[in-house]
Amino acid sequence: MSTNNSGLEIVKIDVKDVRFPTSLGAHGSDALHVDPDYSCAYVTTTTKNGTQGFGLTFTCGRGTEIVVLTIRSMKKFIIGKNAGDIFSDFAGFWRTITNDSQMRWIGPEKGVAHLAAAAILNSLWDLWARLENKPLWKLLVDLEPEVLVSTIDFRYITDVVTKEEAIQMLKDKQIGKADRIKYLEEHGYPAYTTQVGWMGYSDELVHSLCEKYLKLGFKYFKVKVGVNFEDDYRRCSAVRECIGPNNFLMVDANQAWSVNEAIEWMKKLAPLKPMWIEEPTSPDDILGHAAISKALAPYEIGVATGEMCANRVMFKQFLQSGAMQYCQIDSARIGGINEIIAVYLMAEKLKVKVCPHAGGVGLCEMVQHLQFFDYVSVSGTMQDRLIEYVDQQHEHFVDPCVVVNARYMPQAHIGYSTQFLPGILDKFSYPHGSEWKKMIKDGLFPPPDEVELLNA
Amino acid sequence: MSTNNSGLEIVKIDVKDVRFPTSLGAHGSDALHVDPDYSCAYVTTTTKNGTQGFGLTFTCGRGTEIVVLTIRSMKKFIIGKNAGDIFSDFAGFWRTITNDSQMRWIGPEKGVAHLAAAAILNSLWDLWARLENKPLWKLLVDLEPEVLVSTIDFRYITDVVTKEEAIQMLKDKQIGKADRIKYLEEHGYPAYTTQVGWMGYSDELVHSLCEKYLKLGFKYFKVKVGVNFEDDYRRCSAVRECIGPNNFLMVDANQAWSVNEAIEWMKKLAPLKPMWIEEPTSPDDILGHAAISKALAPYEIGVATGEMCANRVMFKQFLQSGAMQYCQIDSARIGGINEIIAVYLMAEKLKVKVCPHAGGVGLCEMVQHLQFFDYVSVSGTMQDRLIEYVDQQHEHFVDPCVVVNARYMPQAHIGYSTQFLPGILDKFSYPHGSEWKKMIKDGLFPPPDEVELLNA
Repeated sequence: MSTNNSGLEIVKIDVKDVRFPTSLGAHGSDALHVDPDYSCAYVTTTTKNGTQGFGLTFTCGRGTEIVVLTIRSMKKFIIGKNAGDIFSDFAGFWRTITNDSQMRWIGPEKGVAHLAAAAILNSLWDLWARLENKPLWKLLVDLEPEVLVSTIDFRYITDVVTKEEAIQMLKDKQIGKADRIKYLEEHGYPAYTTQVGWMGYSDELVHSLCEKYLKLGFKYFKVKVGVNFEDDYRRCSAVRECIGPNNFLMVDANQAWSVNEAIEWMKKLAPLKPMWIEEPTSPDDILGHAAISKALAPYEIGVATGEMCANRVMFKQFLQSGAMQYCQIDSARIGGINEIIAVYLMAEKLKVKVCPHAGGVGLCEMVQHLQFFDYVSVSGTMQDRLIEYVDQQHEHFVDPCVVVNARYMPQAHIGYSTQFLPGILDKFSYPHGSEWKKMIKDGLFPPPDEVELLNA
Repeated sequence: MSTNNSGLEIVKIDVKDVRFPTSLGAHGSDALHVDPDYSCAYVTTTTKNGTQGFGLTFTCGRGTEIVVLTIRSMKKFIIGKNAGDIFSDFAGFWRTITNDSQMRWIGPEKGVAHLAAAAILNSLWDLWARLENKPLWKLLVDLEPEVLVSTIDFRYITDVVTKEEAIQMLKDKQIGKADRIKYLEEHGYPAYTTQVGWMGYSDELVHSLCEKYLKLGFKYFKVKVGVNFEDDYRRCSAVRECIGPNNFLMVDANQAWSVNEAIEWMKKLAPLKPMWIEEPTSPDDILGHAAISKALAPYEIGVATGEMCANRVMFKQFLQSGAMQYCQIDSARIGGINEIIAVYLMAEKLKVKVCPHAGGVGLCEMVQHLQFFDYVSVSGTMQDRLIEYVDQQHEHFVDPCVVVNARYMPQAHIGYSTQFLPGILDKFSYPHGSEWKKMIKDGLFPPPDEVELLNA
């Protein structure tokens, strides 16, 4: 693409607070997030010639207004810039919006500021793929290694991977690439389901959902744990009984435990043969996860984490220290594909399997592209790797992910798959979308607070 | 205090975006923060009977509006609560505002959300001290160990310190307490100066400032480094020459380097005998700091960090792993005194010296109280411990800190010392304070953006 195409000047960044009332059905409930309303800050970036990119960052309801306001505050770093110029020095642009010399104090590279940057960056990557008329994963696998690597800010990670090594790693994987693309397009990529064991679900519902997903071809099933041991043992036993000894059970504590508590709790669940324990403790506790990993290795239970891992520096340490056996990269928490690719490269270098976090709003749609890219261009294998699949909130999207026989199937649609269908914003924008007006009027939800009203 | 005093109902939380135009003089400039406008989100909490608490979190200019909006969004967790009830279950309240089941996704316990919580919690601790008619440090040392410890959320840190151990540690230090209070009140607490070597200062200014602070009795001098080695060597040599071999030089890279670069750069600065290197790399890189500490130990250079350490879980790991020899707790980044005390207790347990980060706006005012408390109730010593002192922005406060002969002297004023003088908000509230209106009109600063205007 020409970098002096004036039609690519970014003239508008629109952002919306979009919420879905999932708390009404306890969908998504876990040990710490008892009543999430799956939500997102939704960004539409428009160029002078009318091309648009759509990006989002996932949220859980309250607090989305803060992320939206932060995105509005970051517009000043983007409006008037040429998208072509951004893509030709994407690492430079990345540093501009993640490390403004004044604003970085309120991060840096974590929390609200990084979520906001993620939504913007996701919209820019979508825009790039649309300009190239390709699905996002295809853009990634087609870019020359030098170009792809030029999008990454290597500050703070050169002790694990340098720019030169990264280019070499990608070049080495050019061999067999066409075959892998063919295999991927024909066979898709394996998925696991989280839909069977949300914390708020009754035992009957858990059982019927296991039956349903077994029939759909799933072999990997994840259950939420961490509030009450007896309940956990009963629910996990029910799932294990239903799926049999040859399928796989994973458990997810969503940060409920201290380090020692995690070890003790999991030793007692070990007879049910869980493949991994996900988020056993604080997402910031690298040394804690390393201790848990070491203690549970004799039981053949791996540790999985990453959905709340703040940035590439935190991932670097989890990967360096044996603190994660499954790296659950998230598509909307860290700084866009620029930073995500850095994590994939470090994971490959340190031989840790990436199994992306998904669910929420639009996360399944996004991570499929990332994992397809990993298979074709980075790790070159699907062995023991899985993409999370949660069967909800896909109906809002123009190009929802397609899972057939428990495998994500690549689609021909261009972009990053996160464009909402017409009407979704009118209905679910918070607080003035038609559905929210109705639910608030009916007393199902309290009225918005003063800050939530500022995004109207 | 009675917990059923209805006069203590919190009826109002006011928050202001307050900025001072420090970028005009390069005060506060360093390797990554080239033009900070020292700022804060300033909270006034008012009870039904009219008692007020004042709290702030420090910021660097742009982005303050986001923290302010987050505080406004958090009002719903506080308005209508009784301050007495909060203080009698302060750990419970702490978890309410830091771990709301929906809002924690945008943190958790880090970045904007935690800065906002810090400002609110600081105002509540100030309120508590005012209700008890004591300086904040005196409130802390007078509280029964059981009561003080009841303010801490021990989740995720019990592998280093449990509630019971914490109580015992504080009880053990009751011995000699009266003597330490007397010594502190008579002799104050040692300070070091950061005022001599901001990155943007000329060599002449650095030299004259060294002379000035030597005359004021200072023995410890900190210089900003990390952009250009030759410049660093020249500036540090000038400071060393001026202060002589028996005073102390510290250097601060403000996160400029990768891990290996930090080691190489500091080995070359070693002949100038720096006592510590502060923030050599990413504030999130525990393992990196541990590697740097190990490599620099033979040169007798310690590693100092903490001003951007996100929370007690991150501090725990820095302390556990030998990654910091000087723990630079900040008074306004992590979750208020509740979480700060947890860090002091872990540092004492793991025998790491706490030398708090200060400067900015109100940080010197606050950290003196924390370090006085540490001396009286936790570590029981001032040995090799220092409080940072930056000689600017004190003129805005009703009770500025008082440093005499390079020692912070305890004052009798009640509270946490962060109440602004009358008129400060009218002048420096951003963007509509009279000083800002004038500076923006004069073209010294660009006009505010759409989000900055929302806090008007």
